[in-house]
Amino acid sequence: MITITKESHTQLIADFQRVRAQSQNICAPLQKEDYVAQPVVFVSPPKWHLGHTTWFFETFLLQEFMEGYELFHPRYAYVFNSYYEGAGERVQRSDRGNLTRPTVDKVYAYREYVDRHVERLLSTVEITDEIAYIVQIGLHHEQQHQELLFYDIQYILGHNPLFPTYKEGAQIESHAGTPSLEWLEMEEGIYEVGHDGKGFHFDNEGGKHRVFLEPYRITDRLITNAEYLAFVEAGGYKDYQYWLEEGWRWVNENQVDSPMYWFKVNGQWQQFSMQGMHPLDLNAPVTHISYYEAQAFAKWKGLRLPTEFEWEAACLHYAPEIPELANFVDAEQFRPVARQGKDYQFYGDCWEWTQSAYLPYPRYEAPEGTLGEYNGKFMVNQMVLKGGSCATPRDHIRPTYRNFFQAEMRWHYTGLRLAETL
Amino acid sequence: MITITKESHTQLIADFQRVRAQSQNICAPLQKEDYVAQPVVFVSPPKWHLGHTTWFFETFLLQEFMEGYELFHPRYAYVFNSYYEGAGERVQRSDRGNLTRPTVDKVYAYREYVDRHVERLLSTVEITDEIAYIVQIGLHHEQQHQELLFYDIQYILGHNPLFPTYKEGAQIESHAGTPSLEWLEMEEGIYEVGHDGKGFHFDNEGGKHRVFLEPYRITDRLITNAEYLAFVEAGGYKDYQYWLEEGWRWVNENQVDSPMYWFKVNGQWQQFSMQGMHPLDLNAPVTHISYYEAQAFAKWKGLRLPTEFEWEAACLHYAPEIPELANFVDAEQFRPVARQGKDYQFYGDCWEWTQSAYLPYPRYEAPEGTLGEYNGKFMVNQMVLKGGSCATPRDHIRPTYRNFFQAEMRWHYTGLRLAETL
Amino acid sequence: MITITKESHTQLIADFQRVRAQSQNICAPLQKEDYVAQPVVFVSPPKWHLGHTTWFFETFLLQEFMEGYELFHPRYAYVFNSYYEGAGERVQRSDRGNLTRPTVDKVYAYREYVDRHVERLLSTVEITDEIAYIVQIGLHHEQQHQELLFYDIQYILGHNPLFPTYKEGAQIESHAGTPSLEWLEMEEGIYEVGHDGKGFHFDNEGGKHRVFLEPYRITDRLITNAEYLAFVEAGGYKDYQYWLEEGWRWVNENQVDSPMYWFKVNGQWQQFSMQGMHPLDLNAPVTHISYYEAQAFAKWKGLRLPTEFEWEAACLHYAPEIPELANFVDAEQFRPVARQGKDYQFYGDCWEWTQSAYLPYPRYEAPEGTLGEYNGKFMVNQMVLKGGSCATPRDHIRPTYRNFFQAEMRWHYTGLRLAETL
Amino acid sequence: MITITKESHTQLIADFQRVRAQSQNICAPLQKEDYVAQPVVFVSPPKWHLGHTTWFFETFLLQEFMEGYELFHPRYAYVFNSYYEGAGERVQRSDRGNLTRPTVDKVYAYREYVDRHVERLLSTVEITDEIAYIVQIGLHHEQQHQELLFYDIQYILGHNPLFPTYKEGAQIESHAGTPSLEWLEMEEGIYEVGHDGKGFHFDNEGGKHRVFLEPYRITDRLITNAEYLAFVEAGGYKDYQYWLEEGWRWVNENQVDSPMYWFKVNGQWQQFSMQGMHPLDLNAPVTHISYYEAQAFAKWKGLRLPTEFEWEAACLHYAPEIPELANFVDAEQFRPVARQGKDYQFYGDCWEWTQSAYLPYPRYEAPEGTLGEYNGKFMVNQMVLKGGSCATPRDHIRPTYRNFFQAEMRWHYTGLRLAETL
Repeated sequence: MITITKESHTQLIADFQRVRAQSQNICAPLQKEDYVAQPVVFVSPPKWHLGHTTWFFETFLLQEFMEGYELFHPRYAYVFNSYYEGAGERVQRSDRGNLTRPTVDKVYAYREYVDRHVERLLSTVEITDEIAYIVQIGLHHEQQHQELLFYDIQYILGHNPLFPTYKEGAQIESHAGTPSLEWLEMEEGIYEVGHDGKGFHFDNEGGKHRVFLEPYRITDRLITNAEYLAFVEAGGYKDYQYWLEEGWRWVNENQVDSPMYWFKVNGQWQQFSMQGMHPLDLNAPVTHISYYEAQAFAKWKGLRLPTEFEWEAACLHYAPEIPELANFVDAEQFRPVARQGKDYQFYGDCWEWTQSAYLPYPRYEAPEGTLGEYNGKFMVNQMVLKGGSCATPRDHIRPTYRNFFQAEMRWHYTGLRLAETL
Repeated sequence: MITITKESHTQLIADFQRVRAQSQNICAPLQKEDYVAQPVVFVSPPKWHLGHTTWFFETFLLQEFMEGYELFHPRYAYVFNSYYEGAGERVQRSDRGNLTRPTVDKVYAYREYVDRHVERLLSTVEITDEIAYIVQIGLHHEQQHQELLFYDIQYILGHNPLFPTYKEGAQIESHAGTPSLEWLEMEEGIYEVGHDGKGFHFDNEGGKHRVFLEPYRITDRLITNAEYLAFVEAGGYKDYQYWLEEGWRWVNENQVDSPMYWFKVNGQWQQFSMQGMHPLDLNAPVTHISYYEAQAFAKWKGLRLPTEFEWEAACLHYAPEIPELANFVDAEQFRPVARQGKDYQFYGDCWEWTQSAYLPYPRYEAPEGTLGEYNGKFMVNQMVLKGGSCATPRDHIRPTYRNFFQAEMRWHYTGLRLAETL
Repeated sequence: MITITKESHTQLIADFQRVRAQSQNICAPLQKEDYVAQPVVFVSPPKWHLGHTTWFFETFLLQEFMEGYELFHPRYAYVFNSYYEGAGERVQRSDRGNLTRPTVDKVYAYREYVDRHVERLLSTVEITDEIAYIVQIGLHHEQQHQELLFYDIQYILGHNPLFPTYKEGAQIESHAGTPSLEWLEMEEGIYEVGHDGKGFHFDNEGGKHRVFLEPYRITDRLITNAEYLAFVEAGGYKDYQYWLEEGWRWVNENQVDSPMYWFKVNGQWQQFSMQGMHPLDLNAPVTHISYYEAQAFAKWKGLRLPTEFEWEAACLHYAPEIPELANFVDAEQFRPVARQGKDYQFYGDCWEWTQSAYLPYPRYEAPEGTLGEYNGKFMVNQMVLKGGSCATPRDHIRPTYRNFFQAEMRWHYTGLRLAETL
Repeated sequence: MITITKESHTQLIADFQRVRAQSQNICAPLQKEDYVAQPVVFVSPPKWHLGHTTWFFETFLLQEFMEGYELFHPRYAYVFNSYYEGAGERVQRSDRGNLTRPTVDKVYAYREYVDRHVERLLSTVEITDEIAYIVQIGLHHEQQHQELLFYDIQYILGHNPLFPTYKEGAQIESHAGTPSLEWLEMEEGIYEVGHDGKGFHFDNEGGKHRVFLEPYRITDRLITNAEYLAFVEAGGYKDYQYWLEEGWRWVNENQVDSPMYWFKVNGQWQQFSMQGMHPLDLNAPVTHISYYEAQAFAKWKGLRLPTEFEWEAACLHYAPEIPELANFVDAEQFRPVARQGKDYQFYGDCWEWTQSAYLPYPRYEAPEGTLGEYNGKFMVNQMVLKGGSCATPRDHIRPTYRNFFQAEMRWHYTGLRLAETL
């Protein structure tokens, strides 16, 4: 178990209330019907996320530490367990969208019931390290599902022939213009990567270790829609030589010809975002691309993606602090926006595909027990992404944070920057 | 076009209002979430049925005959067309459950809008044969979807781990007992089958023609759960020799060991019906069986299913009139119940699988135009079912009525009676 | 069991030798490699057919009736059983093409071994009715596999990019011309159909029974390639209104635009047959079409396919005897050819799709035991074909003969004639 | 292009003849039928390998450099191209087993024809660097297919219910015993990995670069069947906690309970190898395991697999030279055998799964043109294996050699050794 500083009762309860409330804020603009659908197996219905994050606290906190706790409903564990083999049988992932019950109202009642008990627990028992850790991991877990809520809501709305808007939001317009792409140079040498173990972090960020990096350089911002559009219009999706073999198969089997949510309507490129359908924002970072697309774009440019280590070293060197104007969920843009000032965009906007496979670090150790299934069991056939997105809470991210997805995934806010060895 | 008697304005409007209201009555016990899901491709979300039946009137009646009619929404035709190639592009059938919009409220508003316009049309224009025909076919079409609503609602609730009840309904208890099974004998000879063309009927019931039947007999009631249970408990699902080759594959691939909605809980057989989970009603007719199961049961008995012609001839001979106590939807039992009195159960309770494939009768002609797609294009690889069910409106059925489904289907109220050639 | 006339030892042995030799004659033009492949699950490798027909005699004749018979190889029953559940475990059908062993030489050795034993058995024991029946059914079974050998060999060669020729054969040229299409009229009335039980027949032809036929007419020959080409060139494959819904899906999912083995090369229609690739023979009957295509062509013509009963009644009325020049396998054309003289083409050339589903006749009874699996268990979701083909042995066919295949199948020699009710 | 030392005409021709002959030696024990089958999509028929390696020389050497060269057959490029998009259309990979033609004899004639022309070319033209490179890469390419031939032949024979033997070979018996497992320690530091560019190597081995390794240790030999059997018998395949999530799904979907080719017959573990079915050789290295299984075994042991860099550094440190008794194909054992003496087994026996994903090295560059598709386009979702196997030619391997396969593959000779960070 990771040792953490014990927080005061008050702070822990405040954090708990703030994060729990945020999940419900995210869902506030939805109609009840929007909570139910699962248009594709990797999307979960919003009400499932609300229930699952609640089940997490019920299972790992209340059932373990609250004497005499009574389950809200005996079958909810079956309904809301995701993939924890150690926590018993569960609804098949592909069937989540078939569950019209419990209703949305019931799920909110479930949240209220569990929240009340957690608050009572945290107000009355001694907060051990273990309890604090479980609350904290539960909250970070919930923040991850808050990100997923954005991806999934956008998918549900963006695959509806009526293309409903999530939230009208700010005026959609291109920002003044994007500065030209510059290189950030990095010297060869031994760098330390990974989390040092102080403060909250996920198991997959540890242990801190050394890597040697050949000299390299990395672009000072994300690739924009305008730059990516040039690839599209140069026939990039029709020329096998830019693509990995798997990627080429993926392009052809799925008839992919542009990022997800791009639509050519009467000769004009439109994009669907949480603000509805609107013209492609040329200066904003390209997003909703798969690893295959990121890699193909880089190859077309004669360059490559950075490794996760190169990214982390450059981030720590050039942007050790998160800038004020980083586009996280707190900014309520709900989509990547054009670079602002000289920001290097290492944080927020969109998760950056790296050329690193998601594998354990030296001395990596999964926690004991069911929570050990959290990260470690996915360490094959996924790629690492860094930096957070417009759907990430600002207090959730770190330079050492390792996100990971399969190469073909692109319903989340993904993007890229380029690199090369010198 | 089928010629029908012109009805008075008043009667037609009254029928229209009555049938349209019934669809909404059926959905009244639902939660909003229940309207959205499509747990399997052959089930449609309840709100889709409500919208589709409305689209039918908008497309074939209002757009054709009401001058200056404005569509409720320009994209609803795309959302609510089912399979009419002649009526343009449409949402893939498998994607109906992904449509969280239009919301339930919007669908009801759509119904209200279309109903108001239909009523105005019927009140103001001259009711030609063509208009009357389209209204009538629209209403019979809606009645068919009312049946489907029951099947689909039961599927949605019955595949939810919480097993919600649709309606508490009458006390579930076995009726006093089932009289022993008797034979109804029929002489060899030429019989007339099919619809004579007077009054409303579907195209597939015409034209009336002659068939020769070898002498045969047919059971005087449906097979009960008790009788079917004997087959289950004799190992019927484990012995290939009772099964068609396709059926045996189906049993094994799907690990079928009993009718749909039968559950063995702590050694007791339970069944899920619209009244929720309750003990198997032994005297009620067996239902939710595929053609494969009906055929296997008959073979186990050393008998066979009747053909559609044998069924129709026997029905017309022994039960030319629909008995008062037939278990149609009007009786609000919402499931097959034990035989009452000496009723032969030719009507209601459950659709009876016949040993006839669904094929055109001599001189069959599909109507011109898009409505010609209604029945004719399904005439291959389906089996005929006769007699209506507990979900059928009493005024919807006729002895000549031909229902049809694929052999593996069993989410609807199906059952069987036995026959043999003498 | 069907009672048959006891044949003399000599005649039975002569039949046995003749039929068994014919299987090997069919394979004589093959290369060893051609015996192995299974390019699609419904095709079996030629050596599998040679082994399976041998296993049939070994299992049902030698093991039952020859005292002290020793199996040629203990695992061959596993390799060569097709679908007889009663005869034990077997290689999955889709895996037949993976079996490089036993080699072709071994399979021929197996045949030689079993033949020698059968001949010894038939020379030494008393030929009971049961033995004679099993020999006869074994020989008819082998003749059916001889047909399949042609279909499968043509499939293997015709799906090879080198398009090898089976046998150069006769000059391929269009015959002098096809007489115009005439109608054969039939009066309404009661007709007898099915086999009367005298002489060899398959179980599915029995029992003889009466049907009433409305007055109808039927074309006096098969539809030609020229006539079918007109449908192709009129856009028949692009217009949904001619197609059954299943057929339309089949056309689109498989991108079908013409019969199997038609190829448009440099603007000219070619066909691949056992004589290799050659220009489409316009006067020959169209072949290699599915039921869907036969039905769509008929609908395009404003007509329909005959039922199996209409076909049988007309055949018995107009062509009770098999004409001398019927194009059976004995004629060694190995493909349908243009109508010769006034032949009605009820026999040979190609199997005619009927509008009848394959279902049991009244009083149908499957034989006891494993041979009861021969026909009866396939009686669902298949269509009846009548008349035999250019791959059928002349002494194998009867007007009552019922062939059956799934509607989408077309690798065999299929064709059609038209009918209408008067 | 990689610069290589120009070889003398004589040496190049000798190498060419030697390697080409070896492909045919490997196939010598086969029956003709064995050359045809493709029991699973990743296996290719032996005759396809023989043709494809020949097509490689015809396409990249003869067509480019021999004036007036005439193709052996105009369609063979279509038949024998594997995956080179730059070299045109080709038979779908899954259809290779359907190709009964060209026959085995024709394929050998094709080889003879191309060999004769290559020899003539090499005897008559000036051997430029480019020609020498293409010959060399063609020969290394052919050696890779020689390995595949072993995997594929074993698959074909080992999935046949008759379990034929490839070659009787040496007596199968357990060697005297396996020394206990020891650790080889390695200090932390910067290590050079990758090929220095001198002499032949594949593009994916370059460029040489530096990595930092934390201190670690690695076992001094491969894991044996006895050790792996302990995992099997401890229920390792039934406990999710040892498995990656993907691996656990793979185990369950495929009902895996032991390595490929292990069979429990009457309570005794047997293994199928090229010598046929025989008792499990307990002291031989475990082989035919997937990455998932290797990883699960390591986790069960509380250890992990080495990275490709750790493996390479340890190999170069402890075994810079290939030992005489390494079990390569030259030893004609055709399966991994028990460790001999103090050999560390870095070379031969079986390819060792590493914990490294197959990704490009810094400064990696794919060659220009069609040969650039050789390695680079597979750099996603595969794992690196090191060290060669009992099917690898001794002169084909190097410590820098990077083999790569998907995590679920195990029909090749795979195995593992363990590591841990200190």
